[in-house]
Amino acid sequence: MTLPTTETLNLDLDGPVLHITLNRPDSRNAMSLNMVNELMAVFESVRENTSIRAIVLRGAGGHFCAGGDIKDMAGARQKAAAGDSDAYISLNRRFGEMITAANQQPQVIITVLEGAVLGGGFGLACISDIALAHCDATFGLPETGLGVIPAQIAPFVVERIGLTQARRLALTGIRFKGEEALRLGIVHEVANDSAALDAALGNTLEAVRRCAPGANRVTKALILKVGHEPMDRLLDQAAVDFAAAVNGAEGQEGTMAFVQKRPASWNQ
Amino acid sequence: MTLPTTETLNLDLDGPVLHITLNRPDSRNAMSLNMVNELMAVFESVRENTSIRAIVLRGAGGHFCAGGDIKDMAGARQKAAAGDSDAYISLNRRFGEMITAANQQPQVIITVLEGAVLGGGFGLACISDIALAHCDATFGLPETGLGVIPAQIAPFVVERIGLTQARRLALTGIRFKGEEALRLGIVHEVANDSAALDAALGNTLEAVRRCAPGANRVTKALILKVGHEPMDRLLDQAAVDFAAAVNGAEGQEGTMAFVQKRPASWNQ
Amino acid sequence: MTLPTTETLNLDLDGPVLHITLNRPDSRNAMSLNMVNELMAVFESVRENTSIRAIVLRGAGGHFCAGGDIKDMAGARQKAAAGDSDAYISLNRRFGEMITAANQQPQVIITVLEGAVLGGGFGLACISDIALAHCDATFGLPETGLGVIPAQIAPFVVERIGLTQARRLALTGIRFKGEEALRLGIVHEVANDSAALDAALGNTLEAVRRCAPGANRVTKALILKVGHEPMDRLLDQAAVDFAAAVNGAEGQEGTMAFVQKRPASWNQ
Repeated sequence: MTLPTTETLNLDLDGPVLHITLNRPDSRNAMSLNMVNELMAVFESVRENTSIRAIVLRGAGGHFCAGGDIKDMAGARQKAAAGDSDAYISLNRRFGEMITAANQQPQVIITVLEGAVLGGGFGLACISDIALAHCDATFGLPETGLGVIPAQIAPFVVERIGLTQARRLALTGIRFKGEEALRLGIVHEVANDSAALDAALGNTLEAVRRCAPGANRVTKALILKVGHEPMDRLLDQAAVDFAAAVNGAEGQEGTMAFVQKRPASWNQ
Repeated sequence: MTLPTTETLNLDLDGPVLHITLNRPDSRNAMSLNMVNELMAVFESVRENTSIRAIVLRGAGGHFCAGGDIKDMAGARQKAAAGDSDAYISLNRRFGEMITAANQQPQVIITVLEGAVLGGGFGLACISDIALAHCDATFGLPETGLGVIPAQIAPFVVERIGLTQARRLALTGIRFKGEEALRLGIVHEVANDSAALDAALGNTLEAVRRCAPGANRVTKALILKVGHEPMDRLLDQAAVDFAAAVNGAEGQEGTMAFVQKRPASWNQ
Repeated sequence: MTLPTTETLNLDLDGPVLHITLNRPDSRNAMSLNMVNELMAVFESVRENTSIRAIVLRGAGGHFCAGGDIKDMAGARQKAAAGDSDAYISLNRRFGEMITAANQQPQVIITVLEGAVLGGGFGLACISDIALAHCDATFGLPETGLGVIPAQIAPFVVERIGLTQARRLALTGIRFKGEEALRLGIVHEVANDSAALDAALGNTLEAVRRCAPGANRVTKALILKVGHEPMDRLLDQAAVDFAAAVNGAEGQEGTMAFVQKRPASWNQ
């Protein structure tokens, strides 16, 4: 397969795992419009690729992502001054389109969070299926302290951890570390050093490899619908999907492997 | 009253408490279609019985429930081979119907979780009002590791602990113990041994006995509606229910007992 | 500005912070109808006042609020006996109207929770943006133990901490302290003594002061809409709000202050 050519991202396909590294370390991987568009393009290019089962997102240079990009903002300011009153709107909305799409990505999305996880970086972390953090990673929503609003971010924080915790974070701008992010439910695991963080990623990828790729895809689509469709209708469709899974190749291989006490064919 | 005759369940009515024991210890209480149907019948038979105030669900032989039943699956496979293409669908959907009904059961449902709490057992735990776990109980969603999907289960896990934690559990199949189940909000209490687990159950039943039976029924119905009806309409109805409770026998007895500093008549 | 005259509340305006003290210490600040109406009037009077940025709610005499008022109940009983069958309904519903309004208040609402935080007091705590508790504060829903229902309260507990925890609290009436309230997500911070509680309040107010007042207002309105509007429509509007914030006085001052490495004008 051919992945898009990217300037702001390093891409590394390792068997069933696509590693995406945000690669603008000089600006702590600030989320430029170019980076947003490249992430969109990469997600889109692999969406239907069933041989890719997990996507690992992390940042180069010790930071995940420090938020929006100042140069983009300056560019939008110039456009706005030149009469393009929608420049800020479309710049902002585009980021939300990207994390909306990423949230629905059929592969298992894993974020590895180090250093700054601020603003847009925080929002991006909020859509991952599994978030692994270094204990010294710094989380926060600095927007209102800068006189602006976490427009495309705060709604995903509410979806991630609920209104009760999100309202405090958004209205105080407080910063906090990995252990607190774990307690709030933003991340799933915290590691005390880089080696432990890499080990946690290794264990997570091993667990994902044990899961049948097609079954994981269908399961992710199912759970993302909870709360957005009447429960009964959702369960009706889920039963049909269950039967298809049992009758399909994965269901048959899974049963055989279980009976024969061996790893299933997809567990490699 | 007459309870249904059951093969897979032991039933024990102890005053206001109905104890249901899943009783297929040879298969770690795997959730057979027969067991699903018997649970449905028992729940249905006591639904309008206001003298039963709590239902305790646990498993015989040291396990709660290890998931679906392999013989049922084999049976469905034969039916499917014989042309009944809906065999898997209806087998699967029936389990979801049972936990949907159990979730709405007017009595207080208490689960006591030991040993295997996997797949369907995990789903059943997710609809209890109060879940008490042994620290060594093992929780997990093994489905996608077997090439199938947690179709009637994962949606209830999302309702139990939210999307953020559910997506990780469903897409990795990881297993975890009681303390982690407490941290994730799946269970409410963890006990370090069987005696402590029984003590926790005793304390819980004592607390439920202090609550007026009718008031608890109305309260449970009310909180199950939150998020499914506009809040204002729900609060309007709740005020009407409140007035009825105050004017009713329980409200009058509760006030009298409070003034007279004695236990209310229902607290026995 | 002129604040309403109040009998049951002490009001103290300290720069951008309005301190409201529930002041019926003889009844542990039981929530009388008069108090409900006065709280409504105060919230209403400052709603459009953008110079007030935070509202601190606490109770006089070592308790936050012990629940409903017994004299009000007696009064409603007399009215009901005299033929006004709606007396209980309107008394009850009015409390729910007040916390519904308080939940939507544009200022940052901070509750400081000591002593009794029961029934209506618990409900009021559940709508705060930031809840700070003394470790010895006592939380609980005693209603069904008294033969009545937490009609206007339990739904806000569900919105605060989710169905899974709320169903247990509502159906057992158990009481618990500050650390457990933190674990359940009812409060955001717990302090071990009064000095630490005051310090936590001071730190919280300092954090709120660092946030631009208009941006905080818009952000609070935005996050309260999540789950009540389609996400895409909400994000579309948020992008428009973002552009307005960037182009507005706060956005420009915030950028300038950031570049000049000085506190923004609103941070005082």
